[in-house]
Amino acid sequence: MPPVEVSFLPQGQKVMAGQGSLLVEVAAKAGLLIDTPCGGQGRCGRCLVKVEQGEVQGSQNPHLSPQQVEEGWVLACQAKVGSSPLVITVPPSYERERLAVEGTTASKVALPSRCSFPLLPAVRRVFIELTPPSLQDNIADLERVKLALSQEHNIENFHLSLPQLRELASTLREDNWQFSLTLNTASLETQVIDFYPGRRQGPLLGLAIDIGTTNVVMDLVDLRSGKIVEQVSARNQQITRGDDVISRIVYAEKNRNGLSELQGLVASTINELIDGLAQRQKFQPWEIMEIVVAGNTIMSHIFLGLDPSYLRQEPYAPTATSFPSTTAAEVGLKANPRAPVYCLPSIAAYVGGDIVAGAITGCLFQTKKLTLFLDIGTNGEIVLGTADWLTTCACSAGPAFEGAGVRWGMRAVPGAIEEVRVSSKTLEPTVRVIGNVPPQGICGSGMISALAEMLITGIIDRSGKIDVEFVAEKTQPRPRARIGEHGPEYVFAWAETTASGQDIVLTGVDINNLIRTKAAIYAGIAVMARSLGLPLDQVEEVLIGGAFGQHINVEEAIHIGLLPDLPWERYNFLGNTSLAGAYHALVSKSARVLAEEIARKMTYFELIADNTFMNEFSAALFLPHTDMTLFPSVQAALEGAATLRRRL
Amino acid sequence: MPPVEVSFLPQGQKVMAGQGSLLVEVAAKAGLLIDTPCGGQGRCGRCLVKVEQGEVQGSQNPHLSPQQVEEGWVLACQAKVGSSPLVITVPPSYERERLAVEGTTASKVALPSRCSFPLLPAVRRVFIELTPPSLQDNIADLERVKLALSQEHNIENFHLSLPQLRELASTLREDNWQFSLTLNTASLETQVIDFYPGRRQGPLLGLAIDIGTTNVVMDLVDLRSGKIVEQVSARNQQITRGDDVISRIVYAEKNRNGLSELQGLVASTINELIDGLAQRQKFQPWEIMEIVVAGNTIMSHIFLGLDPSYLRQEPYAPTATSFPSTTAAEVGLKANPRAPVYCLPSIAAYVGGDIVAGAITGCLFQTKKLTLFLDIGTNGEIVLGTADWLTTCACSAGPAFEGAGVRWGMRAVPGAIEEVRVSSKTLEPTVRVIGNVPPQGICGSGMISALAEMLITGIIDRSGKIDVEFVAEKTQPRPRARIGEHGPEYVFAWAETTASGQDIVLTGVDINNLIRTKAAIYAGIAVMARSLGLPLDQVEEVLIGGAFGQHINVEEAIHIGLLPDLPWERYNFLGNTSLAGAYHALVSKSARVLAEEIARKMTYFELIADNTFMNEFSAALFLPHTDMTLFPSVQAALEGAATLRRRL
Repeated sequence: MPPVEVSFLPQGQKVMAGQGSLLVEVAAKAGLLIDTPCGGQGRCGRCLVKVEQGEVQGSQNPHLSPQQVEEGWVLACQAKVGSSPLVITVPPSYERERLAVEGTTASKVALPSRCSFPLLPAVRRVFIELTPPSLQDNIADLERVKLALSQEHNIENFHLSLPQLRELASTLREDNWQFSLTLNTASLETQVIDFYPGRRQGPLLGLAIDIGTTNVVMDLVDLRSGKIVEQVSARNQQITRGDDVISRIVYAEKNRNGLSELQGLVASTINELIDGLAQRQKFQPWEIMEIVVAGNTIMSHIFLGLDPSYLRQEPYAPTATSFPSTTAAEVGLKANPRAPVYCLPSIAAYVGGDIVAGAITGCLFQTKKLTLFLDIGTNGEIVLGTADWLTTCACSAGPAFEGAGVRWGMRAVPGAIEEVRVSSKTLEPTVRVIGNVPPQGICGSGMISALAEMLITGIIDRSGKIDVEFVAEKTQPRPRARIGEHGPEYVFAWAETTASGQDIVLTGVDINNLIRTKAAIYAGIAVMARSLGLPLDQVEEVLIGGAFGQHINVEEAIHIGLLPDLPWERYNFLGNTSLAGAYHALVSKSARVLAEEIARKMTYFELIADNTFMNEFSAALFLPHTDMTLFPSVQAALEGAATLRRRL
Repeated sequence: MPPVEVSFLPQGQKVMAGQGSLLVEVAAKAGLLIDTPCGGQGRCGRCLVKVEQGEVQGSQNPHLSPQQVEEGWVLACQAKVGSSPLVITVPPSYERERLAVEGTTASKVALPSRCSFPLLPAVRRVFIELTPPSLQDNIADLERVKLALSQEHNIENFHLSLPQLRELASTLREDNWQFSLTLNTASLETQVIDFYPGRRQGPLLGLAIDIGTTNVVMDLVDLRSGKIVEQVSARNQQITRGDDVISRIVYAEKNRNGLSELQGLVASTINELIDGLAQRQKFQPWEIMEIVVAGNTIMSHIFLGLDPSYLRQEPYAPTATSFPSTTAAEVGLKANPRAPVYCLPSIAAYVGGDIVAGAITGCLFQTKKLTLFLDIGTNGEIVLGTADWLTTCACSAGPAFEGAGVRWGMRAVPGAIEEVRVSSKTLEPTVRVIGNVPPQGICGSGMISALAEMLITGIIDRSGKIDVEFVAEKTQPRPRARIGEHGPEYVFAWAETTASGQDIVLTGVDINNLIRTKAAIYAGIAVMARSLGLPLDQVEEVLIGGAFGQHINVEEAIHIGLLPDLPWERYNFLGNTSLAGAYHALVSKSARVLAEEIARKMTYFELIADNTFMNEFSAALFLPHTDMTLFPSVQAALEGAATLRRRL
């Protein structure tokens, strides 16, 4: 097996490498040092490189989404040189973080879907050439159009609004009875979005939008090919009125016109993105002919101008879970005023269209495997089931993983510690910071990582209590653990290395908050599974959606008892399933029908109404859990680590 | 058989009368002289009296519409005293004319329909009492409402607009989850017109409107009972922009905003009527929840704001014949803004929703008899067929019967000569004037009457030529016939008796215009029947609709060859069939479905495209026709009259 040439972009270094060599090693040979925070175990997913030409071995990894695999991304610590010469892009680590955090801005984005849908957009454009009327055939213009649509395009139940009908006669006659119609075939009645004399050229565009509480991400889609022209994202401007959904609801309640202000802010977020797209892709906003939106129930309510107050009042009844189709004009979007706007249906107050989108993207409607779908954010939404039945619940996990209630907590933006390694020997930490800049705080994945490492190295015990004495002793002369203002704390970054010039620590209070959060999610999963009579180890597949889920390290999440102790290979990360679901519903009526079907079929399970939840929650207030038989792999890891500690 | 007491209202005269005595004679005994212009033959229909109490014999007469019969109207020259005491109202003759011309304004009006439809209005009000949501049952408000509508009211496919949905949550909670919905169930999707917290009281009103070129007549209807609360009418304010449909189209074309001005005028006509109704009947205009409109195709187009230009340009293709459902707000009517407005479908440019309304009212969809339906105005619309097939055509008769193109022609309003008798002996005329005032001119029925009398008495020959010498000789010393400014003419009223102080005459030119008009209508009937291979004498029933039709004397119309020579009993006068059809479509979805079905099924026959029309028209330019074998009864009458003349 002769060595093959491996080139590295962007700088073009070339080296010869033996087949079977790990890319991380070949890169080092070329002078490129790629960080491997997990020590090359393929579990942190941070050594992403992109195969531009040639084939590598071992390109699959649970940390790679199908989207990333399709684009050629591999983990440099796992992928090996094959028989063909390779061209590999090693992005700067800042760029890799950005890609991971904000999603890729590449102009062509593959989809994190596990199944495909036929290309069948609700919006179509048809060209019609009518026989002009004569004395022998002088039926009404509208009847003539209906006849042609029925005979030539199989379109029945065609409906023109009165204002449109007022334009029909002159439009038909303007270009000798040739004309083009843009139609919305989504409902029983085919509606006309627009019509023009002659054969209309130009694009037929749609938008798939994920309205997140924090970010709005959207795909501009060519409805004829289903191709994503460009993906863009921006902060949801509502964030200036509150970080989480509850504070948004409160804002809507407490302020005169608060709701319409919030509605305007999300519309403005979208409109600014549309402006950018229009400029770069050279189209007119009114050429956007359809919009599909996925969001949680609160975001969907506010986007549609529906009062969200009742969503935070017991018994948490939404105004609607299946939303009436509306138009761009009615919700203030800069698109064709008559462009239909479809919101993916919700299930309940805290299980929204984003979860229905996830269920589509995760193909939950056609799997035979018992599947657990998780979307973890401020709330953890959980779906469990197979093609035959689906049950869902939401647990109010709290915003700890999003940075609230944790002294140095922050969102996953540059400056956030996103991963932590603690040496078992020295108890000294190594941190990875998003953007490779001085750290400002710790984001959700960093917190999970920190808890797991602290547990495995004995810094904290299973109740989360910091063993200050033990740490202080091991980390002399500058003890990493101490009693601070808020009680015991462990220092992850010394003041001189941080952006604020202060030590970045996790305190006992922070740790308790994090444990409560993970306990709520695990308890939600456990209660729902038990109520269905299904032991958790029967779950054959775990799908993790959502932006946060994309960055969780499975091993660490299991270690702290956030995720059930299942073999890693059962875990799959799907990335932004909310956006992907909106995309599918935009380009395929089949996906939309499935979404409505799933929303109807899915049984909502109200955790608050279950009297075993509090017991389950209490039992989960340990790391990983009171009942260690539920976490055999953690049991083994803890025992191994304890043995190691005794040896050190 | 003892004599019975007969009382006459309004003055209360009482007489005893033998059973079998004619009412006209009994009235004379009481000092009440009721005019019988036709000499008591029951053919002029002008001696209307109303039976308030008791039963008369011989109350049926082809001149009485079912509506009139139901109200108790009888012809005093035909009805006889029965075995029970009678109370009879003898209206002043002016009042009788008004009733006949303008339609009755009685608060309860029976319908000129020949068949009944189930009471099944598209608009319904339902009351719902929901189980409030709980943690165990916290489905969305909208789903809760849908479920209740489906389970309790069998309503599926329920649709709320987004603005309505925005009000739902608070409305439901305002009166403890009890609320009322006003629904439009006309289409596949049940739409919400309005909803209110609690149990809504108050009326559920609808309007049935006949938009005529000249008059707008409407019924205010209680949609729960189907009862007509009040009938009102007014001049169509568009009349200030042209008398006939063609001049309206021209006005819309020639004037900036002409169309919207005309649209506003008809809306304003209706709104003023609504104001009056609301005041008298004590309701709020927004309590009107549905509106159904029947009108000719031009009136329907203008009412909906559709450009009517193409309706007067070959090949006369309307913009629409089946109109999209719209709302009161969209057409500017003072009703509930979301009240659906339904226009009865048209067939072609000159066969409109008024004719479809006539077909419903005349039960053409369920008759086994070969039926001819006629609506004569500026255009004559003709329908021929049975339940199995219907063919229709329109002939541009011209406005002669409406007063245009005839020197002293006028509409059927007070001052119009509406009936003429000419003595065979003296050739002196007796005229009946609407309103019993000095005559101002001659209206359509007067012209038919005049032509028939002139023909039978030999004043004109079969080509319409006035025999000036014959008349002048017989009417010495003041000759009724002479050569005037416009050629030969016959004087019906001397200057000293007329409103203008001028002689009212019919000239040779007038007569030619009238003959052309009647010839066009007859030719239309004849061509259509022949094209279907059906001799006219196979027509088993003739239904005459429209306001003008109501006042035609069948015998006279046959005499001049306007109507085919069929036995009188085959003729039925239905009155305002356009309004009646609108009423049926308002109170019964079945009638509406039938209207759409009839509109689809009815074959339109384009007379202009038929090359036998001109021959048939020429042949009809005689009185009654070139081919006398088609008019045997007229042949006999003319022979009898000629014999009489020779004897005199």
